[in-house]
Amino acid sequence: MRIPFLVHAHEFPIPGSHPQPPLDIHCSWLLLSCSTVVSIRKHPDFATTGQWNAVTEAGGKQTSHVFDAVMVCSGNFSEPSLPLQCFPGIERFRGQYFHSRQYKHPDVFQGKRVLVVGMGNSGVDIAVEASRVAAKVMISTTRGAWLLSRVFEHGYPWDMILNTRLMSLIKTNLPGPLSWWLLNYKVNRWFNHANYGLQPENSWLVREPVLNDDLPSYILTGRITIKPGVKEFKDNSVVFHNCPEEEPIDIVVFCTGYTVSFPFLEESVVRVENKHASLYKYVFPPQLQKPTLAVLGLIKPLGAIMPVAEMQARWVSRVFKGLCQLPPQAVMEKEVNEKKKNQIQWFGLTFDEVLKTEWLVYLDTLASFIGAKPSVLGLLCTDPRLALTIFFGPCSPYQYRLEGPGRWQGARQAILTQWDRVLKPTRTRVPAGSSSSFLSLLTVVGLLLLLAAVIFGFL
Amino acid sequence: MRIPFLVHAHEFPIPGSHPQPPLDIHCSWLLLSCSTVVSIRKHPDFATTGQWNAVTEAGGKQTSHVFDAVMVCSGNFSEPSLPLQCFPGIERFRGQYFHSRQYKHPDVFQGKRVLVVGMGNSGVDIAVEASRVAAKVMISTTRGAWLLSRVFEHGYPWDMILNTRLMSLIKTNLPGPLSWWLLNYKVNRWFNHANYGLQPENSWLVREPVLNDDLPSYILTGRITIKPGVKEFKDNSVVFHNCPEEEPIDIVVFCTGYTVSFPFLEESVVRVENKHASLYKYVFPPQLQKPTLAVLGLIKPLGAIMPVAEMQARWVSRVFKGLCQLPPQAVMEKEVNEKKKNQIQWFGLTFDEVLKTEWLVYLDTLASFIGAKPSVLGLLCTDPRLALTIFFGPCSPYQYRLEGPGRWQGARQAILTQWDRVLKPTRTRVPAGSSSSFLSLLTVVGLLLLLAAVIFGFL
Ligand SMILES: NC(=O)c1ccc[n+]([C@@H]2O[C@H](COP(=O)([O-])OP(=O)(O)OC[C@H]3O[C@@H](n4cnc5c(N)ncnc54)[C@H](OP(=O)(O)O)[C@@H]3O)[C@@H](O)[C@H]2O)c1
Ligand SMILES: NC(=O)c1ccc[n+]([C@@H]2O[C@H](COP(=O)([O-])OP(=O)(O)OC[C@H]3O[C@@H](n4cnc5c(N)ncnc54)[C@H](OP(=O)(O)O)[C@@H]3O)[C@@H](O)[C@H]2O)c1
Repeated sequence: MRIPFLVHAHEFPIPGSHPQPPLDIHCSWLLLSCSTVVSIRKHPDFATTGQWNAVTEAGGKQTSHVFDAVMVCSGNFSEPSLPLQCFPGIERFRGQYFHSRQYKHPDVFQGKRVLVVGMGNSGVDIAVEASRVAAKVMISTTRGAWLLSRVFEHGYPWDMILNTRLMSLIKTNLPGPLSWWLLNYKVNRWFNHANYGLQPENSWLVREPVLNDDLPSYILTGRITIKPGVKEFKDNSVVFHNCPEEEPIDIVVFCTGYTVSFPFLEESVVRVENKHASLYKYVFPPQLQKPTLAVLGLIKPLGAIMPVAEMQARWVSRVFKGLCQLPPQAVMEKEVNEKKKNQIQWFGLTFDEVLKTEWLVYLDTLASFIGAKPSVLGLLCTDPRLALTIFFGPCSPYQYRLEGPGRWQGARQAILTQWDRVLKPTRTRVPAGSSSSFLSLLTVVGLLLLLAAVIFGFL
Repeated sequence: MRIPFLVHAHEFPIPGSHPQPPLDIHCSWLLLSCSTVVSIRKHPDFATTGQWNAVTEAGGKQTSHVFDAVMVCSGNFSEPSLPLQCFPGIERFRGQYFHSRQYKHPDVFQGKRVLVVGMGNSGVDIAVEASRVAAKVMISTTRGAWLLSRVFEHGYPWDMILNTRLMSLIKTNLPGPLSWWLLNYKVNRWFNHANYGLQPENSWLVREPVLNDDLPSYILTGRITIKPGVKEFKDNSVVFHNCPEEEPIDIVVFCTGYTVSFPFLEESVVRVENKHASLYKYVFPPQLQKPTLAVLGLIKPLGAIMPVAEMQARWVSRVFKGLCQLPPQAVMEKEVNEKKKNQIQWFGLTFDEVLKTEWLVYLDTLASFIGAKPSVLGLLCTDPRLALTIFFGPCSPYQYRLEGPGRWQGARQAILTQWDRVLKPTRTRVPAGSSSSFLSLLTVVGLLLLLAAVIFGFL
């Protein structure tokens, strides 16, 4: 089989981040580093062979190829969305402006008054870097966002705590608003988002949270100021909604995100509407006669993208080889259309489609397609320690290497030791006098003393 | 009266940070910006007049003056402590090394492997800045430290939450270890210090906490590594205690703190032993016949230094003018000597003398000397709202402007509005749909739903 991968460097899973058994498929990688894909069209006898004609370009010369199947890994973030029409007066603005994709180094901000438009992860990352050299930095956000710290409970990375089977069960079984309320309660324990001008409009999570540890202290110490949406640009300044004063500005960075597009495909292959591609399980175009084209990594769940892309690749390679079947076209189209109605109403509030797909549920679904989903209940009888660790611990990708194709002998041990191994790079100093049992003893003594103090009326 | 102030720019209270009624004393400020003080000696008839002979130097020319009194404000942090003898092998180390006081800009660290020695506030601040440009940054700490975030509960600055009369009452009335345990419990709620190699030796707070918001995420993301104490330097590397491998290093920054010294004074005027000056209430040398010399700002309580220095200045100016009396020499010396025994034993653990002086208790003590200490109990009858705000809210310096000399009409209003005014610079965006009563309603609804969910066995 000859299959081209279309890969963007920044979308490719970090090598060595977890064991990656080779895909059991023979691939033609020739396009990867040296050629641009100009077009991919159905082969004249696609209906019987499922093949694709690809035209690539390298050094000004075009070449044609025929492939048995295609994995599109061109990523979410190649085509900037720069909706200038939403910003009245931008044509008369005399300062510099550019899209976040053009940003390379904070030096451009040296001594300048900077406005960052849009509070996604790009906006906050750029504002934080700019604020170390700029004269002034403002972030303008219409919708606001919840901020999540990478440093989570006990100092573990946030997804080790939040992306567990227990949490997933809670999130998917509680009524939507309640599960979001729970998450928001946790998020606001760090600091009250309203006090820093960050809280999302309508006070529910209507968008991807921003992961950033620096922003709160930068707001508190005055390095970054949060502003409402932009009302209008003037020659050398900007006016915000609900703010009477103009703010003088030298540079504007539009961190307004990206649009999904596949310039090398015919529109009929992958339909894109309203920033969403019509794909079965975010991967397969449902209307093709043969399932020989798949899109990988075009999903934004709240969790690491690497295990997701790996799982998609495992599924796709088995579909291509005929070892897994897709459901009938009608079933797939029905599901895709249901997902499109992404304005689910709960108390009159809307949720982002993107985030409605629970990271763990999505992984489990694909894993069940290829027979790699772990059975927690089954394990409870045969290996209770493992079962409990799987249920209460982080859903690291080892869980999908315990059984099925691509099974890995080391998976069990890897799961049982993951908590300790995650701390290995940060626990680089263990003071002589410290022992955790001593600490626990102190905690118990402390609690007892506190109780005594309360009883005796100290408090 | 002619009184010189000896001031270091970085020690001087920020102008405008709070209302500063003028000191009720006429000062000679001529020395401030243009002259160096060479010596200050007792005037021959000091015993009767309390006067001082001062020699200053400017433009290579020395001048003599006679002053009625002297305020020494030369600060804690002018003479670096660089104990090279504690670092075997430093003489053969071929890389660059310098004391934190010489550090000006992170550019020197560009692409280098940097070792920061000492985990005080200087060490962590410098490591954080270095890590944005350096190839590698390590902090070596023998004792470790608790890390405190500036962003505290609800997003208020930490001292608005921790430095209240209620907290002070708890801290001073609970047995020492219990009050520290309470603080440590709060501190470890952010993240578990042991997991990041930071926890203090002996697990009790034996030193000033480090105030830094960046360090935890920098450790988690691998920008900064915490290491134990230095065992030995080699030509191009360093060996740490309990670590077998050598670490190659290009630059060492010794953030090893400062020594207290008064090179312009005779040793008999202010005695310095073991980094501590023998001063009554950290201000007056107890053995002088006349109280006409005072040291300001030579104290490191856990709280803002500006209100402390202001209060010291108010007290000192009244002592100089004869409006306040100091206790007899014997009483002052007894107290100073007691403070020197700074090895209080609690479960075999030692506390830093510096931190045993509660910030608020110290302010109250000086305020009571000049009659400016607010009476919370008294106010409870006459102005209960103010009394409760004073007791539960932050101890901002307005509290010492309600009565006594330097009384300020605006103090009450300033105290009652301080919570809102602190948020004014950070609450720069209020989304249209948000109202705090709506949010509270959601919280109540959320809690009820959660309760229902628990009862119906979802959890
Ligand atoms: N460190 C990281 O992990 C990292 C870093 C960067 C990006 N990413 C990921 O990369 C993806 C893209 O992130 P991104 O920040 O570039 O884009 P994004 O998340 O799509 O955010 C774009 C933002 O621009 C604003 N915006 C969009 N259209 C607008 C319009 N017409 N008028 C005014 N404002 C408009 C909105 O912000 P407001 O609602 O605030 O106005 C919107 O949320 C995300 O999935 C992100 O998580 C990750
Ligand atoms: N942003 C701020 O507010 C800020 C910034 C900088 C400084 N400051 C203040 O300025 C004052 C001075 O701070 P600093 O950090 O310069 O000094 P410091 O707090 O006195 O800390 C010096 C550190 O150097 C290490 N050290 C001292 N002698 C040593 C020896 N013989 N061998 C090995 N290590 C030794 C110790 O660290 P280990 O125990 O870790 O080894 C010690 O804690 C402090 O009050 C600080 O809070 C404040």
